[in-house]
Amino acid sequence: MWLTRRMSTVPAPELGAVLHLLRDGRSRTRAELARTTGLSRSTMSTRIDELLRLGLVAPVGDAGSTGGRPAATFALAPASRLAVGVDLGATHARIAVTDLTGHELAGHLEQLRIADGPDIVLDRVATVLAELVTGLDRPLGDVVGVGVGLPGPVDHMTGRPTKPPIMPGWDGTDVVGALRQRLGNIAVLVDNDVNLMALGEHATALPDVEHLLYVKVATGIGSGIIADGRIHRGAQGSAGDLGHIAVPGAEPVRCACGNTGCLEAIAGGGAVAARLTEQGVPARTTSDVVDLVRHGDLRAAAAVRDAGRSIGAVLASCVSLLNPSAVVVGGSMSRAGEHLIAGIREVVYSRSLPLATQHLRVATSIAGARAGVLGGAHAAAEHAFAHPALLTRDAAVSAPESAAATA
Amino acid sequence: MWLTRRMSTVPAPELGAVLHLLRDGRSRTRAELARTTGLSRSTMSTRIDELLRLGLVAPVGDAGSTGGRPAATFALAPASRLAVGVDLGATHARIAVTDLTGHELAGHLEQLRIADGPDIVLDRVATVLAELVTGLDRPLGDVVGVGVGLPGPVDHMTGRPTKPPIMPGWDGTDVVGALRQRLGNIAVLVDNDVNLMALGEHATALPDVEHLLYVKVATGIGSGIIADGRIHRGAQGSAGDLGHIAVPGAEPVRCACGNTGCLEAIAGGGAVAARLTEQGVPARTTSDVVDLVRHGDLRAAAAVRDAGRSIGAVLASCVSLLNPSAVVVGGSMSRAGEHLIAGIREVVYSRSLPLATQHLRVATSIAGARAGVLGGAHAAAEHAFAHPALLTRDAAVSAPESAAATA
Repeated sequence: MWLTRRMSTVPAPELGAVLHLLRDGRSRTRAELARTTGLSRSTMSTRIDELLRLGLVAPVGDAGSTGGRPAATFALAPASRLAVGVDLGATHARIAVTDLTGHELAGHLEQLRIADGPDIVLDRVATVLAELVTGLDRPLGDVVGVGVGLPGPVDHMTGRPTKPPIMPGWDGTDVVGALRQRLGNIAVLVDNDVNLMALGEHATALPDVEHLLYVKVATGIGSGIIADGRIHRGAQGSAGDLGHIAVPGAEPVRCACGNTGCLEAIAGGGAVAARLTEQGVPARTTSDVVDLVRHGDLRAAAAVRDAGRSIGAVLASCVSLLNPSAVVVGGSMSRAGEHLIAGIREVVYSRSLPLATQHLRVATSIAGARAGVLGGAHAAAEHAFAHPALLTRDAAVSAPESAAATA
Repeated sequence: MWLTRRMSTVPAPELGAVLHLLRDGRSRTRAELARTTGLSRSTMSTRIDELLRLGLVAPVGDAGSTGGRPAATFALAPASRLAVGVDLGATHARIAVTDLTGHELAGHLEQLRIADGPDIVLDRVATVLAELVTGLDRPLGDVVGVGVGLPGPVDHMTGRPTKPPIMPGWDGTDVVGALRQRLGNIAVLVDNDVNLMALGEHATALPDVEHLLYVKVATGIGSGIIADGRIHRGAQGSAGDLGHIAVPGAEPVRCACGNTGCLEAIAGGGAVAARLTEQGVPARTTSDVVDLVRHGDLRAAAAVRDAGRSIGAVLASCVSLLNPSAVVVGGSMSRAGEHLIAGIREVVYSRSLPLATQHLRVATSIAGARAGVLGGAHAAAEHAFAHPALLTRDAAVSAPESAAATA
């Protein structure tokens, strides 16, 4: 859900067209830009001058000369504006500041309990965000948008969490308003964390994949669905919720949700740790399990592989239903190495339809733990290019009044 | 996959804008149309005259006068052009001719074996199609497009069936080319039948539902996914294939595909018939099962309800993953009355996440057996509005040369 700052001046629509064109990073001459956008040479010259003045475009050099005076070429200046991604988990906050192409310029990770409630958490997020931007010697007004991922269902139309099970005190909170109160009149997007992880993986590692299923395996298990290049959120924004799907062929283990045989109760980090503890290998959290595997504990490795098989049984159904070209596995349990992905692959390839698996990649996340923040920043930049007024405003003029106080 | 006729004259882009606007069926004055499209009054008058001449727009009456001479209003003339839907099943062909709003003007159903191969089947389709159009006293040139549903996977980019299990002789067939050879240079779309059923149900019964899962239960079991108002086809076009998803909690019944516990092997029409036969109630096909239920056979009713529960167990996973607002059940087994849907509802509501089922409707198809043809015709009309040259060509001039021969 986006709320964008109101502009005092609306930019010429052609500025947006030029910026869109230059987004691919290629440099172009004024003549090329005029030809492609259909604008006159003189209008294009005025626009380029405007974009140069705003710092959004920079001269790059001269195009190969064909005789006379070589023509100057221009390209997007990616670092001229900033995008911010915020990833809030049950017990951590990760914040990244990127340029307009998603390149990370500054980042921060700290332990922060989401259960402390929105006031404490969002105060801290705003403070760190402002510090990161200030640390880059940039004004907050350079930030074109903030994409925030929350560990629970988010109503896409309002950006408010909807009965999030592990976020006491957050139900219905106006996260957009709360951040704008702290950071000034800035564009804020709020989404489910796994959706932004899917977006981050897609943008940074698999931009050409149109159909991607990103699976987060940690204490909870969830997924983000990219269909035809866009996030599929579903009617209430709860799409991708794998944690309480029944695992075919599994024992009817009781789940905290009241049903039996749910994926999370069988293959979530807590469930795996509990099973190991029963077997005499003490473990409490997903981290404990990962550490055991990394230290060569064979029972832990086998338990993670078993969890992978159960996840694979559910993913096989998802693959038949969605027919993605890639299934990417992230989340803290994926740090246990090949054991998890091996178990998943084993069942997905044996249980899904041949047509659906023929060209299917099943792989561990490349963006890793940074998928969420990179996805948030990417979403913020995407939004700004779709609403060029967010890019073309004069940063020095429109910096929010409240920024200094918050910083 | 569409191949559209090459136009000798490209229509002014404004014609498309005017037609788009009038598609909602409302009538408007020239002034209203000019205001909304941003065209000048005089350009709009010329365009309206052109559309009147082409018969695409008709004068409807006078707008409420505010004093002076009342202004004439115009509306789309839905019957000025035709769209055709073709639904080919294992043993039937259904063809419908509709107007531009999807209203059925002529229809035909006959037994036709898809296994007889593309030559025989497509000859017959072309003949019946031409007869239906001729029977309406209309030239084939009035047809803006044909949407064809096939009972197997279809490569969306080429419109060719891809290793379809129940369509011997069709693998890789150029269905678009074959129909154009028979019907002239006409726009042809080919898709999986269940995708077109989902589209037909969506267009005729649930146009406001953005996220719809249409499930066809017959000898085979498949689904069509509408996500954000559009068909989700997946990477290879095999999305929605439910038949070989493992049923959670089911016995490991062996399936023809080589796996065990597949939904089709447990709840498909043939599987239900076989189980009834074992119980001393002879049945061979889905029709037999439906007839038994309709004649009050309690064991058949119980078997269908059981099949519904197994389908519900798989759909519960689909609902958690996709978060649709409606699950619609069609296909021949849905004619067995409330037993099937009752079994499905029972498990979907108990197994899916509360957030995903809170506003979920689970209902029997309203479009019924005509969902596929209506979806095909709807897709053809949609395509024509997106490519207005298909609407604005002069029918009398561009009727295909081969049409008469085929008819």
